[in-house]
Amino acid sequence: MDLETPAVVIDRTKVDANLARAQAYADANGLKLRPHIKTHKLPTFARLQCELGAIGITCQKVGEAEVMADGGITDIFIPYNILGEGKLERLAALHQRVNMSVSADSAVTVAGYADHFTDPARPLPVLIECDIGAGRCGVQSADEALALARQIEAAPGLRFEGLMTYPPRGALEAVERWLEDAVTLLEKNGIAVNTVSNGGSPDFYAAATVKSATEHRPGTYIYSDRMQVAFGHGTLEDCALTVLATVVSRPTQNRAVLDTGSKALAADMAPVPGHGHIVEYPDAVITTLNEEHGIVDLSACAIKPEIGEKVRIIPNHVCVVSNLFDVVNLTDGEIVLETVPVAARGKLA
Amino acid sequence: MDLETPAVVIDRTKVDANLARAQAYADANGLKLRPHIKTHKLPTFARLQCELGAIGITCQKVGEAEVMADGGITDIFIPYNILGEGKLERLAALHQRVNMSVSADSAVTVAGYADHFTDPARPLPVLIECDIGAGRCGVQSADEALALARQIEAAPGLRFEGLMTYPPRGALEAVERWLEDAVTLLEKNGIAVNTVSNGGSPDFYAAATVKSATEHRPGTYIYSDRMQVAFGHGTLEDCALTVLATVVSRPTQNRAVLDTGSKALAADMAPVPGHGHIVEYPDAVITTLNEEHGIVDLSACAIKPEIGEKVRIIPNHVCVVSNLFDVVNLTDGEIVLETVPVAARGKLA
Repeated sequence: MDLETPAVVIDRTKVDANLARAQAYADANGLKLRPHIKTHKLPTFARLQCELGAIGITCQKVGEAEVMADGGITDIFIPYNILGEGKLERLAALHQRVNMSVSADSAVTVAGYADHFTDPARPLPVLIECDIGAGRCGVQSADEALALARQIEAAPGLRFEGLMTYPPRGALEAVERWLEDAVTLLEKNGIAVNTVSNGGSPDFYAAATVKSATEHRPGTYIYSDRMQVAFGHGTLEDCALTVLATVVSRPTQNRAVLDTGSKALAADMAPVPGHGHIVEYPDAVITTLNEEHGIVDLSACAIKPEIGEKVRIIPNHVCVVSNLFDVVNLTDGEIVLETVPVAARGKLA
Repeated sequence: MDLETPAVVIDRTKVDANLARAQAYADANGLKLRPHIKTHKLPTFARLQCELGAIGITCQKVGEAEVMADGGITDIFIPYNILGEGKLERLAALHQRVNMSVSADSAVTVAGYADHFTDPARPLPVLIECDIGAGRCGVQSADEALALARQIEAAPGLRFEGLMTYPPRGALEAVERWLEDAVTLLEKNGIAVNTVSNGGSPDFYAAATVKSATEHRPGTYIYSDRMQVAFGHGTLEDCALTVLATVVSRPTQNRAVLDTGSKALAADMAPVPGHGHIVEYPDAVITTLNEEHGIVDLSACAIKPEIGEKVRIIPNHVCVVSNLFDVVNLTDGEIVLETVPVAARGKLA
């Protein structure tokens, strides 16, 4: 492939297969799909996901939502506590042109929304984030959720929409018990729960276990990566995104150096050895990443790469790779169909 | 500070102090300074480094060198094996307008240079990379260096310039012995060694130990970071770059969540616990980074931050942070002097 390295190469056929498989699972199980665009950050794939049946998308930042709204997406959920004047004003402006919804896990966050959304004719839907063992944001109990739901209902410009969680991997039954209890408590108190939003790719194909959930927000499933495969989600063959690299040095018999360091592959580790899987040399191990060097141990390789040779790497964690490249190449086999800017890359705020 | 978070904040006074201290050390020890711009990626700071006495700069990629040449820098060393038609053509174009030099550690790399540089009136200076224990690129012995130097000398459009190394930390005496032996062997064979280029910030203030070296390529010294401080290089007070973050959640008594995840701080670890040092809460530990969440353990904090509060974080590894932000803010105390695009950010090829 005649691309300067490092370059991101995305196999369109694999993308289509990954998207179709997930949409079919969601449809078969009565789950709405609301894909998280953090993995691709491309309006073109967000539109494709919606055309295939997704009810809208998930973004993590207002800046990402702005890019996606510009790209024609009309229903965007940000599962994040949005704080600060600047961001709240941008959120209010966005909600004038597309359907936004957000999450909150504290009275401070809800108060900020209530200050900036005051029109009962176009209320902002707010979901309460629930911490069901992942240990990041979220209310800790159904009682806390009830108190927050009441605060949301009391604000004329807000609408209590439901619950959301990003669950720990492999804990779906506990997640279901927690959500079921919370929904019961809310409804017993006269508060309708329209949406229960669950997330994550690793457990996506068991998502029907969480019967309370009405929608799911998988992200990584579109490309997959070494981490997903290690978690039992598909095979390396399903991985649609690879990083094209050049072997720039062979200092010793068993060492190769690639031009893909942490600036191309990111330093995230998977529960398998090494910093990525080299497709052409599956027995090679990328032992170390400096910023611009990937050090490869070739001890286990019968055939070893030569200087100047190009290889393809399946990254450990694909979402962070999308955030490192200004453009990606959509391909059909060895043909580059299109080079696309990663429009929502680096939207930190 | 009235910036939307996450935002990079750079203290100009600390930058000036860090640069002056390094230049004074280099001057006092007869070392030429050739700073590595990977840390800041800003033409404005590259120009400042040259004004203070640096003989030129170091870049790692042709794309970075293009940005720096556009920014007025006239002497640029790329200590990397540059391979592939596209990159070699861009390198040749660059060498027409500024003074480029490069490294090589193999006959393949030298042959590529020889093909693209054929003008004896404007030869490309080539340094041989030496692996003196760091275990990434580089020839393994003085004999290998001699063979490669002869190949460079035999090419009419190339000029053998000398040796370069990126040494392992804390091994300066071994580095000096290796370089001294190699220089002796080359000179005994009638090959003059003009430049011996050493690198790295952690051992910079002991760089005079390597008497063979004529120049040094420190990078991180301009900002410093937690890793440098852990290596004994200055104090946390010297760290010029911080990431401004907002506390977005306080789900439990001892947990805070920041809006700086691995997309803002990067996942690189330092030899100290946690993913960064929170200036206002030095006893807090950033235990986990997801892409958009930094999870903080407040157990050891007598006073704990509130939701919506802004804090400043000294990153573990500052160079990778520069690569994640489109702009940085240069400040004097609490005043933002200028918001500058990170012009050489994301130049992977």
